[in-house]
Amino acid sequence: MSSEQLRFGLIGTGRIGKVHAASIAALPETVLTWVVDPHLAGAERIAAEHGASASAEPRRAFDSGEIDAVIVASPTSTHAGLIAEAIEAKIPILCEKPIDLDIERVDELAPMVEESDVPFAVGFNRRFDRSFAAARERLLAGDVGDLEQLMIISRDPAPPTIENLRTTGGMFRDQTIHDFDMARFFAPDIVEVFATGSQMFDEGAAELSDFDTATVLMRTAGGAQITIVNSRHSAIGYDQRIEVFGGRGMLEVGNAGTSLLRYSNSSAVQAGAPFQHFFLERYAEAYVDELREFCKLVRGEASRCSTFADGREALVLANAAGLSAREGRAVKIDRGA
Amino acid sequence: MSSEQLRFGLIGTGRIGKVHAASIAALPETVLTWVVDPHLAGAERIAAEHGASASAEPRRAFDSGEIDAVIVASPTSTHAGLIAEAIEAKIPILCEKPIDLDIERVDELAPMVEESDVPFAVGFNRRFDRSFAAARERLLAGDVGDLEQLMIISRDPAPPTIENLRTTGGMFRDQTIHDFDMARFFAPDIVEVFATGSQMFDEGAAELSDFDTATVLMRTAGGAQITIVNSRHSAIGYDQRIEVFGGRGMLEVGNAGTSLLRYSNSSAVQAGAPFQHFFLERYAEAYVDELREFCKLVRGEASRCSTFADGREALVLANAAGLSAREGRAVKIDRGA
Amino acid sequence: MSSEQLRFGLIGTGRIGKVHAASIAALPETVLTWVVDPHLAGAERIAAEHGASASAEPRRAFDSGEIDAVIVASPTSTHAGLIAEAIEAKIPILCEKPIDLDIERVDELAPMVEESDVPFAVGFNRRFDRSFAAARERLLAGDVGDLEQLMIISRDPAPPTIENLRTTGGMFRDQTIHDFDMARFFAPDIVEVFATGSQMFDEGAAELSDFDTATVLMRTAGGAQITIVNSRHSAIGYDQRIEVFGGRGMLEVGNAGTSLLRYSNSSAVQAGAPFQHFFLERYAEAYVDELREFCKLVRGEASRCSTFADGREALVLANAAGLSAREGRAVKIDRGA
Amino acid sequence: MSSEQLRFGLIGTGRIGKVHAASIAALPETVLTWVVDPHLAGAERIAAEHGASASAEPRRAFDSGEIDAVIVASPTSTHAGLIAEAIEAKIPILCEKPIDLDIERVDELAPMVEESDVPFAVGFNRRFDRSFAAARERLLAGDVGDLEQLMIISRDPAPPTIENLRTTGGMFRDQTIHDFDMARFFAPDIVEVFATGSQMFDEGAAELSDFDTATVLMRTAGGAQITIVNSRHSAIGYDQRIEVFGGRGMLEVGNAGTSLLRYSNSSAVQAGAPFQHFFLERYAEAYVDELREFCKLVRGEASRCSTFADGREALVLANAAGLSAREGRAVKIDRGA
Repeated sequence: MSSEQLRFGLIGTGRIGKVHAASIAALPETVLTWVVDPHLAGAERIAAEHGASASAEPRRAFDSGEIDAVIVASPTSTHAGLIAEAIEAKIPILCEKPIDLDIERVDELAPMVEESDVPFAVGFNRRFDRSFAAARERLLAGDVGDLEQLMIISRDPAPPTIENLRTTGGMFRDQTIHDFDMARFFAPDIVEVFATGSQMFDEGAAELSDFDTATVLMRTAGGAQITIVNSRHSAIGYDQRIEVFGGRGMLEVGNAGTSLLRYSNSSAVQAGAPFQHFFLERYAEAYVDELREFCKLVRGEASRCSTFADGREALVLANAAGLSAREGRAVKIDRGA
Repeated sequence: MSSEQLRFGLIGTGRIGKVHAASIAALPETVLTWVVDPHLAGAERIAAEHGASASAEPRRAFDSGEIDAVIVASPTSTHAGLIAEAIEAKIPILCEKPIDLDIERVDELAPMVEESDVPFAVGFNRRFDRSFAAARERLLAGDVGDLEQLMIISRDPAPPTIENLRTTGGMFRDQTIHDFDMARFFAPDIVEVFATGSQMFDEGAAELSDFDTATVLMRTAGGAQITIVNSRHSAIGYDQRIEVFGGRGMLEVGNAGTSLLRYSNSSAVQAGAPFQHFFLERYAEAYVDELREFCKLVRGEASRCSTFADGREALVLANAAGLSAREGRAVKIDRGA
Repeated sequence: MSSEQLRFGLIGTGRIGKVHAASIAALPETVLTWVVDPHLAGAERIAAEHGASASAEPRRAFDSGEIDAVIVASPTSTHAGLIAEAIEAKIPILCEKPIDLDIERVDELAPMVEESDVPFAVGFNRRFDRSFAAARERLLAGDVGDLEQLMIISRDPAPPTIENLRTTGGMFRDQTIHDFDMARFFAPDIVEVFATGSQMFDEGAAELSDFDTATVLMRTAGGAQITIVNSRHSAIGYDQRIEVFGGRGMLEVGNAGTSLLRYSNSSAVQAGAPFQHFFLERYAEAYVDELREFCKLVRGEASRCSTFADGREALVLANAAGLSAREGRAVKIDRGA
Repeated sequence: MSSEQLRFGLIGTGRIGKVHAASIAALPETVLTWVVDPHLAGAERIAAEHGASASAEPRRAFDSGEIDAVIVASPTSTHAGLIAEAIEAKIPILCEKPIDLDIERVDELAPMVEESDVPFAVGFNRRFDRSFAAARERLLAGDVGDLEQLMIISRDPAPPTIENLRTTGGMFRDQTIHDFDMARFFAPDIVEVFATGSQMFDEGAAELSDFDTATVLMRTAGGAQITIVNSRHSAIGYDQRIEVFGGRGMLEVGNAGTSLLRYSNSSAVQAGAPFQHFFLERYAEAYVDELREFCKLVRGEASRCSTFADGREALVLANAAGLSAREGRAVKIDRGA
């Protein structure tokens, strides 16, 4: 272990926890020292792979003196408590989205996070996708003129199980929240939200009065229009695209293929293989870049990490979308709320 | 002139009138015999090119005994009167969209059109675009499963002059009306409309309190979601795309290129030439196909032409969009209205 | 008939003759006045469509005083005689490729053509394809630096009948000759030819000891390398592509699609419709542009038409390819031969 | 170190040696135990990163009892000696291409390799590229019918230094040898080679009477035609494409992009970022897959690794290409030679 390496604790060893463990291993500047999960066997397995210690108790990691930062990848309901604990322990935090499903709880937490000088980042991984980031840079550079219309298409390959669905807080706070953050990445000043949701195919969504298909239309203060198109399924693979339109041109980020091979015959030409399956494949590189940026934040350097406020704003938009879908009207965003 | 040829009168010799004159010349089964325009010189020029007679008076053409059908391509305000006149004269009508800007006037006209047996079609040219039509056929064939989400992107290359803008009845009834019809082409049972419009770049639109940038979100009775994205300008050329998404796959119609050449160098790869400029280029073939289908209608054969009701429904959606944009709420479509 | 229109005689009413008749009709500046074919009924049918006179005898057209130019689209074996006749009659000639299958006959004809001031063009239609022409312009403009490698892929949808094959003079002088001219369009100074041919699928080619599959590799004086890849069949449609490679970049002309629709499902994405079927579709616009350029030649204006020497050079390369394929060695091009 | 892990010695720590070290680290089933390079500091650096031992002497690794297999990634001139040494030591070998520049030396080595039962593989990494491998599988599955024409386009981003060039044995044995193997991957029975080379831009190549630009045309016993297009530079990035053409269709493997972003404005549309830079990026995954397959070979399982004979055949084709380019004639491949 190099003296310059940042030592990480990881809380939560589910799918996204494993992604972070792999990213920590992939970066020379980071090392995994503690793995925490109430399901101790899971923690021990990951710990063994990385020569780290394991515990069912976050406190053990915070008190170990062996972690320079923590990644919170446990269930959403535990985030707020862990954030508070980490801040008290002065351990920098990279917290998976969302901070919490309840905006009041987020607002309670806000002063603590803001008043402390403990580095804090929310894990909006897509901001670190190099194609999305390059699109934003070209927008800021004026390559398409001012933003007039932004389209975000975001469809998961298949719906979550109903057990998972129960914990998500609904489609807008679970799936769309990534797209709300992406919208803010390109257009930070959103002032109005209209949303509609449908139950088209997923019995779980229907049972929970949730949606499986949603479209959101938002406006910025300057009148730019943002459309988010979501579905809980996609036969063609993970559908993750954006279009940035302005008076001088357009930027498009397309889907990621799994093969360079195209097939043509007498009935169809240049047919490619289905797109990448899901976020583990599509954003593998982005997660590593996110971690790299978080290390900069920890070291006090300039960083592209999402802030607590970013996490809060995405939740505000998600809540507004939920209200809009229920009431069939555009909802104004009150930044003071 | 073959005895089987249908003899056409053309009323209006502006840009779209000239397109129809060219289509009539292109089809072996049609011939142009009368050209009418209050601006007589314009009528005479087109008439001379096609060996037709010219007049400033529609009545001359209707009474000539030399036309088997009429294309109404004059300003919108004249449509209703010409339709009534043609129906009285038992002359089949292909009327450019919209029938009228005023839904009440359309509703007054409706019984006359419906009770007569004079063939009537509204000129929604895009339905005849072969790529859009093929997409719809594949949707109906079940290739993508049931429709869940439809996206229509439709951007003109440049805004109309303010003089033209004054006569359009606003962006929704002028530009978006094509997209409302395209939406109904794929999803006839739209029950709800939410729309938003902005003034982003066009002084004419601002002066007239019209929009230059608009997005519309609609729902069908079954919960399918339809998004229309409009702009009055597009640096990249005429932007006319659709995406049809269902549980089994996706159909995409892309923009039409002007060249098969792509250029690559050390800073960019596979850069193509800008897309086709505008509807004259993009839909040239569609206009001919529309005319061919109208000839079938005139002959009493099965035809894909848009009906009076199609023309009315698109206007209903446009009006609902206008109301929605003003009031910031979703507007229900009352089919009985 | 306008006094400025050029009056055309057309000799030969087969597939390519009909293309020229359509082009003459499409251009306002040209009119078809005489149609000649020993199969008189064919000539009469085309003549009737265009209000022209018909004959089985070329002489009738040459002597009519009613043609300002002639298009020779009859079988290759008749070209040389008709060219001589037209030159004597001082009628400008657009002659389909090849001038003749026999280089000696071409060389006999050469002085007559060159010494006369009767405009003469060889119908290498592909030079007028706008994408190929734009590629060449960009090469000449230096956009890819000096030409280093050129690839021409050219595959017909299906082999000719054996009856047609018998008259072609073999694959190199029939199919590849277009590609030899295209090679010279980009790289006029070819000095060496190596060719190989195979009998892979076509019984007619096998019976006639001809090829159905061929590849040709050539060099320019400066060392640039040119590859031509030919096949007599192509399941995916007419395969007509080029790649122009230089030190600064690459120009690619791809195949022409028949639809803007792409289909994606769980097994393949963005599958398009097969490419255009054959030259009638792919080069329809090019034939009109060729005719337009030929009109300029007739009028004494600067013109992009291929010359007699171009026709001869393509045949020289085709003959060299034949010799190379037989002897398995590179053949030097002796420009003095 | 797991008891199931294969322990690797690595000989050579240049660019390609580092790729192998990274692959060994990436695979859970492999571990690097010895690193050898006469430039001891280089060996020690890599060894330190992986917890391996370092030496300037291959013998030290062979005799250590700590390696289960060796990767030979040292200069070509050392390959034959190291292979012999490894075989004597009964250490399975993965040897970078080419086995040797001298076919006689290869032939001397052949009996030793073939008579021993020590697993031996030649490092033709491109066979393990998943897109190329999938193309071959689809060819074998009959998706395009029998192979009729194969095109391999292979251009490096920039020429080697003249110092490196001196050791390569010329373009055909250095660069094209990969493409000869790729040709054999799709068409094992090549019987004839014609090649041409030029000095177009690289002073080093000119000084050494080598080529910087080459095209090779080959035939199989069945008449299928194979074209290889090579350049020592490519402004657009590493150009690595194939096209597999048969009677039923076509398979194309395109270049690998570095971004999903495309940019459109009023002068060009859908311009992408330049392609991946070179083999380290393009074939990173292929090197890992190659190593995985080599592990299977070592364990006596079915493996897709290239054999000694594959290495020899590619060299035979390279030599034939050199002879052909010198003599300007097709060279027959005598498999008995």
